[in-house]
Amino acid sequence: MSKKKSDSIKDISTLGEFGLIDHLTKDFKIVQKSTLKSIGDDAAVIFEQDRQMVVTTDLLIEGVHFDLSYMPLKHLGYKAVVVNLSDVYAMNAEATQITVSIAISNRFPLEAVDELYEGVKTAAKIYNIDVVGGDTTSSTRGLIISVTAIGFAEKEELVYRDGAKENDLIVVTGDLGAAYLGLQVLEREKQVFQVNPNNQPDLEPYVYLVERQLKPEARKDVRELLKALEVMPTAMIDISDGLSSEAMHLCKNSKLGCNLYEDKIPLDPQVISTCEEFNLDSTTIALNGGEDYELLFTISTEDFPKIKGNPHLTVIGHMTHQKEGMHIITRANTKIPLKARGWNSFQETSE
Amino acid sequence: MSKKKSDSIKDISTLGEFGLIDHLTKDFKIVQKSTLKSIGDDAAVIFEQDRQMVVTTDLLIEGVHFDLSYMPLKHLGYKAVVVNLSDVYAMNAEATQITVSIAISNRFPLEAVDELYEGVKTAAKIYNIDVVGGDTTSSTRGLIISVTAIGFAEKEELVYRDGAKENDLIVVTGDLGAAYLGLQVLEREKQVFQVNPNNQPDLEPYVYLVERQLKPEARKDVRELLKALEVMPTAMIDISDGLSSEAMHLCKNSKLGCNLYEDKIPLDPQVISTCEEFNLDSTTIALNGGEDYELLFTISTEDFPKIKGNPHLTVIGHMTHQKEGMHIITRANTKIPLKARGWNSFQETSE
Repeated sequence: MSKKKSDSIKDISTLGEFGLIDHLTKDFKIVQKSTLKSIGDDAAVIFEQDRQMVVTTDLLIEGVHFDLSYMPLKHLGYKAVVVNLSDVYAMNAEATQITVSIAISNRFPLEAVDELYEGVKTAAKIYNIDVVGGDTTSSTRGLIISVTAIGFAEKEELVYRDGAKENDLIVVTGDLGAAYLGLQVLEREKQVFQVNPNNQPDLEPYVYLVERQLKPEARKDVRELLKALEVMPTAMIDISDGLSSEAMHLCKNSKLGCNLYEDKIPLDPQVISTCEEFNLDSTTIALNGGEDYELLFTISTEDFPKIKGNPHLTVIGHMTHQKEGMHIITRANTKIPLKARGWNSFQETSE
Repeated sequence: MSKKKSDSIKDISTLGEFGLIDHLTKDFKIVQKSTLKSIGDDAAVIFEQDRQMVVTTDLLIEGVHFDLSYMPLKHLGYKAVVVNLSDVYAMNAEATQITVSIAISNRFPLEAVDELYEGVKTAAKIYNIDVVGGDTTSSTRGLIISVTAIGFAEKEELVYRDGAKENDLIVVTGDLGAAYLGLQVLEREKQVFQVNPNNQPDLEPYVYLVERQLKPEARKDVRELLKALEVMPTAMIDISDGLSSEAMHLCKNSKLGCNLYEDKIPLDPQVISTCEEFNLDSTTIALNGGEDYELLFTISTEDFPKIKGNPHLTVIGHMTHQKEGMHIITRANTKIPLKARGWNSFQETSE
């Protein structure tokens, strides 16, 4: 309950939980009309009369989901918000509120928590959402962040994973594989640094990749874009675990098969050049890399003319009958079964 | 994506994240009309046309909030849900949905996670709520549980912390201090066990205390009770950090002072006898113990006849003008300022 006014206090244990919450949340402004009561009571209060609500949550653990040796705290706060908003946008809903809980060691300086919350604040501002609650506590080791995101949409706007129909086109936003490669670049630089701390990393050729890893964006714009194009996806999912895994989710939920075309998968030039440098297959990276936070959706073939040529959207395949299975058609015209080799935090070695 | 059907699989890393989610959530039944889509898409979908929504979240960390050496996993799962529902009831709302995220070491056997989820399921059943989402991931060390709870209430039903008026009566449900004493008993037995593992603990004289610590209940019944009594609290909060800290929240939010009366604080006989045994002051325990998950609320003096004599409700004081401050009046008629000495996870030593 020590609500300190001085900004010079640097010790979290002196502030206490309530003081820390006050300190961290004092600048949060309410922007959503549906936020009736934010931080400061037993619960936040939200009201929307006609739209349906979506809710999604993610837990991020230091040493599992992020490495503070190359992840700046501000970026981490930003990313923790963005990965949750991505799930809201994957329902074709408008993201409106989040709660943010953190657990930190009590030896963590207040400045570090401030940095983390700067990232949360920045994301809230850019994505026009309210931070309405959360929890701060100590951890025995490492940093833990839990975010819950809330959004709203008209009933008929919501897009589920199970609505795809046979012959629907499979569309992906943006490009794939960059976030995973960004992580590989950062891991390599970390090892170089450990061998020789005087070695300054040259990240210039990998700027896009590193940015996609450290400061991903959620596709808030796609909901508006599709509305403007008058295209209603039949099914949608966000790409957090890799194209392959997500395409399989759409197929299984919609009880269909699919054909993806290797030559259609959108890749940034930096992905292609870095794959060559690292001796990696760019298609494998795009299929299994994960963390791109692009959207993967299906549309009726009738809607194809509406999206044709749009720089944000790429048709990469189509849905088939379930018995045809889930495949990728290579450049050499070979049909290879899709496998979900996406990131699995429970496996000690990657496949 | 390894959706295994066999129940004999015991290895979480083989199941993978999606397999584990399927395994853990396959028995969850939807009971709330407002749950339109539960686990299985990017987000859950919830709809209530007229009532306002409340949302609250808590993060529980092994070694900070619980000790698995005496906390059975099933009880832990139960308690993790209950502590969040308590915040919903403290808004005078009906709890309807929760999300449950867990992070576990990949050396945790599946049976242990099942036990934890048994507790979650039991709480969901008893409190009539739907588990609509969550996240499962690995941790580098220990168990982490993050629960977000959602509830609904008519606009005019919601009770905030800031609505108390001068002279309002301060009412508490149930009795206080037992949960904290239960923890002291368990800590003592743990130490005895560490010295001599053949020593069987005799918890018989402390059954109520231990139950309050290991299997607390949230006061779902109070909302219905108050409705039946036609009493509308002016302010309300749940007692998670101790009576003193929570009373101070009501005062500060309502911009008032208060007088609590030591002789009015409801104590179970086991609290009194165990305080004597442990040489502790029972009032101090009730004021600062925490984890009782009772409700503390204020009512207009006009409503006093409606609650008088109710075995669930005890008037323990009244609100005063802010300039009078926040005090407890002792049995010896001494006025002592209230201090928030409740639990603070950021402090290494308790005050």
